Amino acid sequence: MRHFFPIIEWLKGYSKQDFNGDIFAGIITAILLVPQGIAYAMLAGLPPQMGLYASILPPVFYALLGSSRTMSVGPVSIAAIMIASALNTPEISALNNPVESAIILSAESGIILLIMASMRMGVLVNFISHPVLTGFTSGASILIIFSQLPHLLGLNKPLCGTGINCYSEYLQGFNPTTLALGLLSLSILLLFNKPLTTLLKKTSLSPAIILGISKTAPLLSVVVSTLLVLHYDFVSTDNVAIVGAIKGGLPELSLGFISSEKWRLLLPYAGFITLIAYVESVAIAKVTANIRHQQINPNQELVALGFSNLAAAVSGGMSVAGGFSRTMVNFSAGARTQMAMLIAVVILTIAVVFASDGFEFIPKATLAAIILIAIFPLIKLRNIVHTWQYDRGDGLAELMTLVGVLLFGIEEGLTLGIILTIATYLRQTSRPHIAEVGRVANSEHFRNINRHKVETWDNLLLLRVDENITFTNADYIGEFIHQRLKNNKAEHVALIFNSVSYIDSTALEALENLNQSLQKDHIYMHLSEVKGPVMDRLEQTDFLEKIKPGKVFFQTKDVVKELAKN
Amino acid sequence: MRHFFPIIEWLKGYSKQDFNGDIFAGIITAILLVPQGIAYAMLAGLPPQMGLYASILPPVFYALLGSSRTMSVGPVSIAAIMIASALNTPEISALNNPVESAIILSAESGIILLIMASMRMGVLVNFISHPVLTGFTSGASILIIFSQLPHLLGLNKPLCGTGINCYSEYLQGFNPTTLALGLLSLSILLLFNKPLTTLLKKTSLSPAIILGISKTAPLLSVVVSTLLVLHYDFVSTDNVAIVGAIKGGLPELSLGFISSEKWRLLLPYAGFITLIAYVESVAIAKVTANIRHQQINPNQELVALGFSNLAAAVSGGMSVAGGFSRTMVNFSAGARTQMAMLIAVVILTIAVVFASDGFEFIPKATLAAIILIAIFPLIKLRNIVHTWQYDRGDGLAELMTLVGVLLFGIEEGLTLGIILTIATYLRQTSRPHIAEVGRVANSEHFRNINRHKVETWDNLLLLRVDENITFTNADYIGEFIHQRLKNNKAEHVALIFNSVSYIDSTALEALENLNQSLQKDHIYMHLSEVKGPVMDRLEQTDFLEKIKPGKVFFQTKDVVKELAKN
Repeated sequence: MRHFFPIIEWLKGYSKQDFNGDIFAGIITAILLVPQGIAYAMLAGLPPQMGLYASILPPVFYALLGSSRTMSVGPVSIAAIMIASALNTPEISALNNPVESAIILSAESGIILLIMASMRMGVLVNFISHPVLTGFTSGASILIIFSQLPHLLGLNKPLCGTGINCYSEYLQGFNPTTLALGLLSLSILLLFNKPLTTLLKKTSLSPAIILGISKTAPLLSVVVSTLLVLHYDFVSTDNVAIVGAIKGGLPELSLGFISSEKWRLLLPYAGFITLIAYVESVAIAKVTANIRHQQINPNQELVALGFSNLAAAVSGGMSVAGGFSRTMVNFSAGARTQMAMLIAVVILTIAVVFASDGFEFIPKATLAAIILIAIFPLIKLRNIVHTWQYDRGDGLAELMTLVGVLLFGIEEGLTLGIILTIATYLRQTSRPHIAEVGRVANSEHFRNINRHKVETWDNLLLLRVDENITFTNADYIGEFIHQRLKNNKAEHVALIFNSVSYIDSTALEALENLNQSLQKDHIYMHLSEVKGPVMDRLEQTDFLEKIKPGKVFFQTKDVVKELAKN
Repeated sequence: MRHFFPIIEWLKGYSKQDFNGDIFAGIITAILLVPQGIAYAMLAGLPPQMGLYASILPPVFYALLGSSRTMSVGPVSIAAIMIASALNTPEISALNNPVESAIILSAESGIILLIMASMRMGVLVNFISHPVLTGFTSGASILIIFSQLPHLLGLNKPLCGTGINCYSEYLQGFNPTTLALGLLSLSILLLFNKPLTTLLKKTSLSPAIILGISKTAPLLSVVVSTLLVLHYDFVSTDNVAIVGAIKGGLPELSLGFISSEKWRLLLPYAGFITLIAYVESVAIAKVTANIRHQQINPNQELVALGFSNLAAAVSGGMSVAGGFSRTMVNFSAGARTQMAMLIAVVILTIAVVFASDGFEFIPKATLAAIILIAIFPLIKLRNIVHTWQYDRGDGLAELMTLVGVLLFGIEEGLTLGIILTIATYLRQTSRPHIAEVGRVANSEHFRNINRHKVETWDNLLLLRVDENITFTNADYIGEFIHQRLKNNKAEHVALIFNSVSYIDSTALEALENLNQSLQKDHIYMHLSEVKGPVMDRLEQTDFLEKIKPGKVFFQTKDVVKELAKN
């Protein structure tokens, strides 16, 4: 029970101090959640309530099941643009029911996560490398910015084509009032960030109050711009785009989506959304957990995020994940436990039930500004240079993921990145370092003959293989040894396996072939410093029989003692 | 020049002895090539001349460019069933021009191979593991057998459905005369294989003559069954299926296929065919080269097979590769050089020009029998058990490739196998062995504390990481070290990197995070036995600065000398 519901763990020792932290953080986070929920629904091309609904039940489920104490789960920007990408594919947009499609995506994500949990595949999170994740996030963020610029500029007409004239005409059609509201919102958001905080710190206000004030920026920009829209009737006079009528009240629970036939069509998109949602959530959870020396259990996260997404589907919400900006707000506002999120949910629910009419007149430009500010820190272009300098393969994967996302699309870019990482990795292991070693004088140490002054013997070749031997490199290693034995008087070749933890069956076959062909030339193969697990498996085969009179030595010095002659 | 045309190398030293071997092997191989060429065209669902044309120009190009002296290039069974699979997909069969589609497949294979050659991607051959290749070959061979059974039984009606009644009705419609001819051919082929050879060896005939006689079985079965068909007029009286009218004469060179718009549609299929054709060819070439201590140059093979396939396309032939049975026949008949294949081509060409009318009445059942006998040795089901016993992951990959080919199709099965191998490999490296080590008394050796009696110290934890540190395992390793340091009084942790040849950028970041969080607890990270290439790259970063006062030690004994306290 306690294992499955981490909430039991922290509720037991819950103190008044914890509550003080949580209530403040809950209020601050709730203030962010309303505009972000609406904004991310807009980003996904969905009605605003889908973002709000996704901020109610899912975080409650996460609070019960999640192993992170401070992560805030709900609609997130990257998943939102991925939903938009799925909904915009011709086959899916032809179905003409984006709401149902989005709910199915949530349901499928939930199911995929729970299947992964049941197969204990939490370790899969490791198969997306950091460079690919960073490149993907940067690329998706740039796409998000471009998707929001028309809202900020108040461009209503669709693009008339790809010509430069057409494009400039399109840009000239911007709405000055919308742009002004957008820039006003941007200014509030930017001012409340660094400048205001720096200023307030010079006053005698407590740090908590300063933090609280600075985090109200999204709400303030929404309130100010909405009041301006209402007061000057910008909608009728200046045609400013607003959120529009919003379905008030609580989400209605429904399983109506189950019978849909779109499941198969949406499944690949759900797969990609799930992958990224999971990987990003665990990454965010780890950042905050590490600071407080808490543990994240990747498999429990699969369970928690799985139920959260199912809860989103049942309550008509979009796909959810751990959000970067909302988690950082929650954490830095002093959240101690998931109680903070439960409090935030209560506040949000009250707002949705009683104040949803007020959301109708929020200008879209303000939401676009909120998205831009939230997304901007996720673009890390300089990181590519940094990665490239350390590792060409990783740098290339990061760059190509970003370029792929921008040129070919979200899913394609991510796939490209994953393939590149794996290809780089396989290539890396396909040409392993093999050192010819000799004995350091008066010692039992053996070192590379090219780097150190060592003793060698004519009839004995000592080769240290610095890599696991598998299908990627078995041929290369065989070839290398063959080459090295040409024009060599060695009668014995000893392979030093102190770096070999794994020999797969392709490699075993290659070693057998190598041994066979060496024996024809009366050269005998020996092994030295074979690790326990490798030895256990070799003993199950007849390989050790086949290499006879070749033997296995415990230490390389024993090889020399028995075989070396000059 | 000599590098690009390996033929120059062996022509220089060409001797009369070589010629004696080659002419005999050439004649024997030619005898096999005619029925096999027609049979594999039938297997691919193409007119017979496409198999014959593929046996003329392509082996000439291979003879000029190939690095194998004895490999016989031409139409092969596995590629043939893959061509059939491509031609049977709804989109491609809707185009209603299988001949042109097959020619485009050859051209695309040629181009892909040459592109791979220009990028020096010969090493790619390593990314299909032996288990996957074996499972794939077995699965494809079983598919081939099922595709040939109707020919052997003379079943002409298409399947009426999937019901068991329907199927038994279908089977009852077999043609007794066809079946008799098929069984006769099978008997000749089986008799000439082991039994006749064993018998003849007891006579005073020379081994060469015996070999020659045994290899005429395919031709003999064709001649006997064709004569029977002609003599009894089986075609009109018993409705026996025959090859039918064949386009005689030499292939006409044409580039007419270039303008076709099917290129894009066929490209993925060409990719799969190329991959398998190349991997199987190199494997076959290596088998024979190893026996004679010759070298195969994988990149040169890309060039040679690339031009061979382009030659096939230009001369109206199907895709070509190195064939297993024909290469073994050529080799065991004593071929010394590619001259044998050139001789075989001359004989085959004469047959195609002057005797193609005779091919018309070859019963399809005989060709099916030839295919069955050629394909049977490629089915290696027991190998799966063998592989499984040594390595579960490899065994599973082999089984799933076979099952995938049978259930989902040729391309799907192969893809599944490749994905499984890579997943197994990544999984294998994702939970590396990390040993806590201590010092063997009175020595400089450090061994696993769980396997050996060793000396340890309270303030110092020595951990040997037995794997490269990459995105697949960086988190696991960090987590492991964290766990090990809990409830431990160590102030220093030294990571022994003697098995680490590669640290990617994800791993570097993870190590930095680990170091940061350890330093908060006043635990310092040290490195020991770092290999040259790894050290070179770490020195380019500020990692070594960040771990200070942690240091890098040359040997683990130095760590102990400087840090150990009890």
